[in-house]
Amino acid sequence: MSTFQPLESDASFQPDCELCREAGGVMVFQARHWRVIRVEDEAFPAFYRVVWRPHVREWTDLSLAHQAEVLGVVDAVERVLRATLSPAKINLASLGNMTPHLHWHVIARFEWDSRWPAPIWAPSAREVAPAPRERLAVGLDPLDAQVARAVAALAPGA
Amino acid sequence: MSTFQPLESDASFQPDCELCREAGGVMVFQARHWRVIRVEDEAFPAFYRVVWRPHVREWTDLSLAHQAEVLGVVDAVERVLRATLSPAKINLASLGNMTPHLHWHVIARFEWDSRWPAPIWAPSAREVAPAPRERLAVGLDPLDAQVARAVAALAPGA
Repeated sequence: MSTFQPLESDASFQPDCELCREAGGVMVFQARHWRVIRVEDEAFPAFYRVVWRPHVREWTDLSLAHQAEVLGVVDAVERVLRATLSPAKINLASLGNMTPHLHWHVIARFEWDSRWPAPIWAPSAREVAPAPRERLAVGLDPLDAQVARAVAALAPGA
Repeated sequence: MSTFQPLESDASFQPDCELCREAGGVMVFQARHWRVIRVEDEAFPAFYRVVWRPHVREWTDLSLAHQAEVLGVVDAVERVLRATLSPAKINLASLGNMTPHLHWHVIARFEWDSRWPAPIWAPSAREVAPAPRERLAVGLDPLDAQVARAVAALAPGA
């Protein structure tokens, strides 16, 4: 388990930005430029975020080399979710309207989930029982560990 | 204006897939591997899609070289939208739950839009008048032309 370290000494640090100040979820792995967290969302238990550690607003504010670095991490998280959970679909998104600090959502979607086939931000379409996390093929702790191993291999100097 | 050409001779072609069979919006530019369309959405007029032409389901089904090719196109579309429209935020997403044929949404968001600051898939929060397309700093035809020029520069052999 990585520990969250805010980049308070970085020129980009914004004390009023939630993703500058806080991890934003369960810490999975932290590298020099990015961290991976798991979002604690009961409806979507296999929901990870790749957060760029410096405060950057838009995707095109990153250099192409840094875009490639982030996308490599997104790619690795998606591969673990596909291999372990066999989801109906992976959803990727970088929105940030409310928290304009660059982060990518990587979400495993299932036909039983409460919004399927709509995006997760649509109104709920059904009650889900048993609870979503009970339906995953693996528990969240071993899933986090697999994600951490996959992305650690991409961290410079790892 | 590019013309849509379905890849009927490609082994991946799925006749029941909407994005194999149809352009999916206003054709902006077509290259060998991808096309750019503008989605005709009254609420979100500056909404483009980068569609991978062969029928591929998930992002990680693409090779890293093809991922980089697609992301270069997404990057170019985002840059044109930022430079011409000064949106409050750009939203990027690859979902495909209903149409599992790889495509990226590139959407300019504004504080006046009907869902702001929620994702576009959330319920509408307000009426917008005058109409969204009247509020853009440039018309949709010149915007399409600028997007087409930007992505044409990325097309192999262009």
